[in-house]
Amino acid sequence: MTRMLIRNVSVLVVPEHGDCRVDQAQDIHITNDQITAITPTGVGEVGEREVIDGTGLVAVAGLVNSHTHSPMVMMRGAAEDLSIEDWFNRRIWPMEVNLTPERVRVGARLACAEMLLAGVTTFVDHYFHAEQIAAAAIESGIRADLAPTFFSSTGHSTAGQDVIGAAFDVTRELSRVHPRISASLGPHATYTVTDDDLRRTADFARDEGFRIHLHAAETDDQTQASLDRHGVTPIQVLERTGVLDAGALIAHGCGIRESDLAILERYADRTTVASCPKVYLKLAMGEVTPIKGLRSAGVRVGIGTDGAAVHNTLDVWEAIRMVALTQKQREHDAEWMTLSDTLRLATRGSAAAAGLADSIGVLEPGRQADIALVDLNGPHNQPLHDPRAALVYSVRASDVVTVLVAGQVVVRDRQLLTMDRDEVVAEARELAHTLVDLSQGGAVQHYAP
Amino acid sequence: MTRMLIRNVSVLVVPEHGDCRVDQAQDIHITNDQITAITPTGVGEVGEREVIDGTGLVAVAGLVNSHTHSPMVMMRGAAEDLSIEDWFNRRIWPMEVNLTPERVRVGARLACAEMLLAGVTTFVDHYFHAEQIAAAAIESGIRADLAPTFFSSTGHSTAGQDVIGAAFDVTRELSRVHPRISASLGPHATYTVTDDDLRRTADFARDEGFRIHLHAAETDDQTQASLDRHGVTPIQVLERTGVLDAGALIAHGCGIRESDLAILERYADRTTVASCPKVYLKLAMGEVTPIKGLRSAGVRVGIGTDGAAVHNTLDVWEAIRMVALTQKQREHDAEWMTLSDTLRLATRGSAAAAGLADSIGVLEPGRQADIALVDLNGPHNQPLHDPRAALVYSVRASDVVTVLVAGQVVVRDRQLLTMDRDEVVAEARELAHTLVDLSQGGAVQHYAP
Repeated sequence: MTRMLIRNVSVLVVPEHGDCRVDQAQDIHITNDQITAITPTGVGEVGEREVIDGTGLVAVAGLVNSHTHSPMVMMRGAAEDLSIEDWFNRRIWPMEVNLTPERVRVGARLACAEMLLAGVTTFVDHYFHAEQIAAAAIESGIRADLAPTFFSSTGHSTAGQDVIGAAFDVTRELSRVHPRISASLGPHATYTVTDDDLRRTADFARDEGFRIHLHAAETDDQTQASLDRHGVTPIQVLERTGVLDAGALIAHGCGIRESDLAILERYADRTTVASCPKVYLKLAMGEVTPIKGLRSAGVRVGIGTDGAAVHNTLDVWEAIRMVALTQKQREHDAEWMTLSDTLRLATRGSAAAAGLADSIGVLEPGRQADIALVDLNGPHNQPLHDPRAALVYSVRASDVVTVLVAGQVVVRDRQLLTMDRDEVVAEARELAHTLVDLSQGGAVQHYAP
Repeated sequence: MTRMLIRNVSVLVVPEHGDCRVDQAQDIHITNDQITAITPTGVGEVGEREVIDGTGLVAVAGLVNSHTHSPMVMMRGAAEDLSIEDWFNRRIWPMEVNLTPERVRVGARLACAEMLLAGVTTFVDHYFHAEQIAAAAIESGIRADLAPTFFSSTGHSTAGQDVIGAAFDVTRELSRVHPRISASLGPHATYTVTDDDLRRTADFARDEGFRIHLHAAETDDQTQASLDRHGVTPIQVLERTGVLDAGALIAHGCGIRESDLAILERYADRTTVASCPKVYLKLAMGEVTPIKGLRSAGVRVGIGTDGAAVHNTLDVWEAIRMVALTQKQREHDAEWMTLSDTLRLATRGSAAAAGLADSIGVLEPGRQADIALVDLNGPHNQPLHDPRAALVYSVRASDVVTVLVAGQVVVRDRQLLTMDRDEVVAEARELAHTLVDLSQGGAVQHYAP
């Protein structure tokens, strides 16, 4: 039995409703992987346990990256200033011809290092060779929900192979591999997976108890194209194929129409949406996730970065800030998406998007000890009239000092303990050119939603 | 004579037109306050001089914060989730009743520390008690252009005092105080300064060779209100009062109409606009600066943070990124506001907004040695397919390692050399409550544009 105490720390408290607050001078008691108590400093028995001094620091629930493609850090900065069509068709999908298990593992290791050092303790991933991502996550100490990506057809010959069945098998295997790893089903999108294959996915999901993580209604253009070609919105496709009934994490959803909200409301208990707004601005997608409408429909929303091939970072602090800013902009209402609501999305909302609403996202007894200790004493955060404002609008990823996942200290004094940071970076740097090589020709898919 | 060499550094080269590039393995030769040569490493005589090892670092022209109110760091996080009306009328202008020379100096010191540590070597300021800001800037080693703020009327009794004449005197005095300090005239805005007082300002500016730094057309609502009340846009006000003829730095300009562009084009050689988009989203202002139109009119645009009472940081890297993202969004064009164009705004554009187009903003012989050395080797920037992309989309202020202003090393290995960082923070923290105290009643001004 491992017992630990984070002593004399400020604690961000995020209630289900109402204002967040920061409680001063608290002790967080941890046994094994769980928080067992949070008490005023000095109250409660300490006994023999490792003590982390939290003086001057703020404890927040470890951040959750609720939608990403972690190995795409290998393409960071290699596809800039492009339309969404060119980004997919001239860069990313031709580059992904180069994916190998090794290159995916190397990318995922780098991604895990970047995220842990920034206080991200869980990521919700959607990518190829997901077993390699699991290996990197397990090694690094991070928590992950992994969805092996599949298309209905790919640019590669898949004759005679049941690519989808194989992806289902990986989901099943990954769900049993490690306590910190969960798995979901990963059809790419409503425009790259047929209705039949979505039905098959939904059936498998219901039979075996998995969630479905996929892209849908990413832009309003996609929604309009779906209406023009099929007479239904992407959300209607998700309903008629049983995906919503099985339970879905929808990435982006910027093209969700008013009329879709009534549908989503019927499945609100098992539907979540991940919002990654830096990407929507960068790709000039025209819309951001309609969080206000989703909230009215009772659908929980989380915050993510998407892949670094477009977001350029896996910095969830940046994503949180972008959600607050773009939501105020979208609603023409500076009083909307308050500090408290933003922090609630980033914690409870993202935990729900990870399928872990009951075990992470909040600092309270019985929850997993996934904790980031943040130093708000730098000149860029001071004076600290409101630590909640600092956490949304001025904190930097580099302010994260110490990080625990499932009670294990993975970052201490800004040093990654589980992997050799320099070796991880060097390995990625060495292989990076192989990922962006376009000389092979071909593409894993074509974007024409 | 002080001679210095930054050895074996990568150098960001920002041409007037076309693509930026990063030259590897360069030496930057510095004598006194100027760059004298940039050569391939090892070429050129070294002689006896201090050597800074630039291996693994990228040298960029020190960043310029082209519009801010530096002492407002004292109100960081104290006015959140408010409409622009409430932000001004219920928080900021009532709080500014509490301004004293000492509090302004303490705030400016903190602001200078924050900016220098982030690689910001020049700031363009607009605030009260500007002589205190000058003192802080001189002490810290930063470069600044300072505009003493004035209104035509204030909430304070100003009977018998020539507030505006006094502000002019401060501008005149500050312009002579130190080689790193320049000064401008600081009427607050077209909606808080009468046409007569703007004319008086323009006359003084022309007579004594000063620029005019002011807020105008901040939102389209302001433009519409001006049209409704006076039959002219704020830009037309600037023209008819002679402000444009004298030469103006216009803060924000989000409400500049298509019809205003033809006016601005006539004064393009002496007009600049500062864009601070994080603020426009946070206050739900509805628009961002129309940079595409301004560029067509030949008006140079710089990038700024505005005050930290709304931007929450003085982080110009963040402001640069927000300009790229919001401009792509505004124009519905992901291919617009490219990496190169963004970096050009951040360097040449902001230098012009500071009134220093010929002496800062570019690393080349004859320019001031204002340089930030940036470490792009962290996991969040790697692999580095394109360092320009890293500088716009993934760099953090904490990646700035070493900073020079006018040939003086002011930050080395992330440590501020000119001031005691902890003492600066502690002093600000101690006084912070006095700034946000609303018990006095009153306000320095009322927002009703």
